[in-house]
Amino acid sequence: MRLTVDSINPHVAAAKFAVRGELAIKSEEYQAKLAKGDKDLPFDQVISAHIGNPQQLDQKPITFFRQVLSLLENPQLLEKEDILIDALGYKPDVFKRARFLLDSVGSVGAYSASAGAPAIKESIARFLKKRDGYSADASKIYLSAGASSGVTTLLHVICASPNTGILVPIPQYPLYTATLSLLNATYVPYNLDESKNWGTDLDTIRESYKAAKANGTDVRAIVIINPGNPTGALLSEEDIRAVLKFANQENLVVMADEVYQSNIFIGKFHSFKAVLRRMQEENPDKYGGIELASFHSVSKGMVGECGHRGGYFELCGFDLEVEANIYKFVSIMLCAPVISQCLVELMVNPPRQGDPSYELYKKEYDSIFEGLKQRAATLHKGFVEMEGVKCQEPQGSMYLFPTIKLPQKAVDAAKAEDRSPDEFYCIRLLEATGICVVPGASFGQKEGTLHFRTAFLAPGTEWVGSITKFHKDFMDKYRV
Amino acid sequence: MRLTVDSINPHVAAAKFAVRGELAIKSEEYQAKLAKGDKDLPFDQVISAHIGNPQQLDQKPITFFRQVLSLLENPQLLEKEDILIDALGYKPDVFKRARFLLDSVGSVGAYSASAGAPAIKESIARFLKKRDGYSADASKIYLSAGASSGVTTLLHVICASPNTGILVPIPQYPLYTATLSLLNATYVPYNLDESKNWGTDLDTIRESYKAAKANGTDVRAIVIINPGNPTGALLSEEDIRAVLKFANQENLVVMADEVYQSNIFIGKFHSFKAVLRRMQEENPDKYGGIELASFHSVSKGMVGECGHRGGYFELCGFDLEVEANIYKFVSIMLCAPVISQCLVELMVNPPRQGDPSYELYKKEYDSIFEGLKQRAATLHKGFVEMEGVKCQEPQGSMYLFPTIKLPQKAVDAAKAEDRSPDEFYCIRLLEATGICVVPGASFGQKEGTLHFRTAFLAPGTEWVGSITKFHKDFMDKYRV
Repeated sequence: MRLTVDSINPHVAAAKFAVRGELAIKSEEYQAKLAKGDKDLPFDQVISAHIGNPQQLDQKPITFFRQVLSLLENPQLLEKEDILIDALGYKPDVFKRARFLLDSVGSVGAYSASAGAPAIKESIARFLKKRDGYSADASKIYLSAGASSGVTTLLHVICASPNTGILVPIPQYPLYTATLSLLNATYVPYNLDESKNWGTDLDTIRESYKAAKANGTDVRAIVIINPGNPTGALLSEEDIRAVLKFANQENLVVMADEVYQSNIFIGKFHSFKAVLRRMQEENPDKYGGIELASFHSVSKGMVGECGHRGGYFELCGFDLEVEANIYKFVSIMLCAPVISQCLVELMVNPPRQGDPSYELYKKEYDSIFEGLKQRAATLHKGFVEMEGVKCQEPQGSMYLFPTIKLPQKAVDAAKAEDRSPDEFYCIRLLEATGICVVPGASFGQKEGTLHFRTAFLAPGTEWVGSITKFHKDFMDKYRV
Repeated sequence: MRLTVDSINPHVAAAKFAVRGELAIKSEEYQAKLAKGDKDLPFDQVISAHIGNPQQLDQKPITFFRQVLSLLENPQLLEKEDILIDALGYKPDVFKRARFLLDSVGSVGAYSASAGAPAIKESIARFLKKRDGYSADASKIYLSAGASSGVTTLLHVICASPNTGILVPIPQYPLYTATLSLLNATYVPYNLDESKNWGTDLDTIRESYKAAKANGTDVRAIVIINPGNPTGALLSEEDIRAVLKFANQENLVVMADEVYQSNIFIGKFHSFKAVLRRMQEENPDKYGGIELASFHSVSKGMVGECGHRGGYFELCGFDLEVEANIYKFVSIMLCAPVISQCLVELMVNPPRQGDPSYELYKKEYDSIFEGLKQRAATLHKGFVEMEGVKCQEPQGSMYLFPTIKLPQKAVDAAKAEDRSPDEFYCIRLLEATGICVVPGASFGQKEGTLHFRTAFLAPGTEWVGSITKFHKDFMDKYRV
């Protein structure tokens, strides 16, 4: 045997990615058992609340998007416009858009340019201008296979040695720590402030930064996830300004993970790009040099098309030679899936008022939004009523991240199984109810605290009741 | 400026990927100029022969595949089966397959399991059994975003330190050297034997291996590309056996890049898996322990769907804990695009004789195959008639890789531009004719030899005439 776990790349062996770890695998096994008609389990369905996978659950794809994609996959249908309109409910703007996209990419079966089809990048630039009120340069936009692939691209380019440090929030989406592990770079964690609805606290960030610098770490970038994953937080413009000022002062690249930018339930989303441009307008001499990479995706929001693996990132203020290296890096994987590039275009340029497809689009979009908002509220209400549980109000994203206080007996039982108490809790929850959530330990949490992350995508509310019941039984069992 | 080319990851900066480098970028600029109506260029179209991108050129997608994909993208069409059959030429088996795939994945907009949808892996296993005559285990199959992403996964896991060496052919597809650069691992090149139709030569491989070992390199794997890219070679069973025996003897992982397995013009394709199983059957004690990873893709062959970024790899003989690490690694990127997973299923399980879609499928498949074969022959004939050019007969893949001998004056002119002579030749060719090919230097070539790689996908034969004319002019200009 040439390869063993002791001889493979130690950085791969050391990487952790629990969103798809033991609990997820166990839940897939349960699913397979149920599919085979197994009646031994104490539940009759698995609720995959461990991952933001909207269409695996209740969320239906947006009709306009999928109609266009069907034409891109089979352009022969374009020749039968009348039939599709009369009998299948397609609207004329579906054909118009499909023709525009096919003109742009040739065929969705052909490679595009490495950073994406130029016309799609232009469309994204128009979207950014409309969103932010500041122009965007299409040549600084890179299509990617989901935001994940964009994030790993940037981290690959930024991390130059084991000494490179990247500021990453606690808690965080574990893509960041997993990729830093793979790159053998240094994770510089900073705590988010749970008491302030999981916002950023500049003093805390500065402390983490200083401690890392004092250890000789070359801190090069700061990652912000806004709206927050797993926290559901939404940053104010003031918080964003503070982060950008700090990044400017310490010469840090800012990586803004904004994949949940349309999942906003309370407050208003401010993009890092818009805030940066405002600061630069107010004070061009001071803030001209900030390097910002921001990430977006078709996976979340009301689009929810994560299976398509589409996304993009935009660079601001990067050195041209560095950009050339980013281009080269993405070119090694040739290009992002072309059908997913088209889906990005549809997301950023949906039907507008007056377009034939607008009414249905709006109805579907609003209904998905309302559904998410309601479920978030129901779940939140369930959590805050549970013994020993606190939970911030859901402001954005698709997750709640409640704190749980567990009795000492449960902590001891977890230790006996060589597990953290939150992992122990989540495994028991899965075994008892079929509901799969992720322990806080997988995202990082302040020492001495316990959490779990749950998506609020699953339909219905019975499962919230199941959590409540499980929690009561669990607490009763382990109460001292 | 935080990031400069001198401060970013030096391994990214050092990586080379010329298939999408200067020539490709220049050809894209020409294309944009022509699209804008520019009349200044000495040609009226760009021929992208630098990359195997079938559908950018003449190759039409296979109707059955795209009909199924259109239903997967818009499942509402499934409700109108009659209309699609009567008016749009869909056949009943298109619906049956689409329903099977939708049952398997739920929605193409949902994440699948990290290594791919289980039912699709089962289908690939059935294909492998049929192809090789030996059973395949679905749990050892991993769907990937094109073969490229599978290759980088394996290299990430195998390469443990700068001292890890991987045997890679000269010439090779530059994904291998680029990825080894990124991983800061050691490229151990071995020459293919141009005089034997670019076959493997075990003595040469052994010499390279020994030299690397003598330098203290921990050589862990050997990469074989069969059919060859850029060479167009096809290995005999005897050659494959020799490689496997050598790998067994020296305890090397075998990485078999078999993405061109259906592009066969002369001879018969033998998969490494089938040959390995035969050897294991003959001599189980001796060959039981060989670790083989083989790669396939929807990008090439008569499928030609590279824009979809679909593929898979199969593992044989790997340690279970190592497999768990491979699973974890792919899970960080969540999953391969789900629509591309479905396309993989269609590729490995196409319509069969008696199925309603079979006749058209067969006709389209055969016509693509014949077109490729003819163009390969035309181009080959053009090359062998050119002064100072030799070219092996096209056995497989989508490329020819002729040797060129250039006059000393051309070599000097290249030097004056700080270019290798083959790069100089390719740039002049692009400038004069709009035909983009890739210099041999980008793939590696034996010292003192010069080549270029050209795909034979472009329609028509006029462009072959343009190369011939350019070559004559070039030789006349630089003749001593």
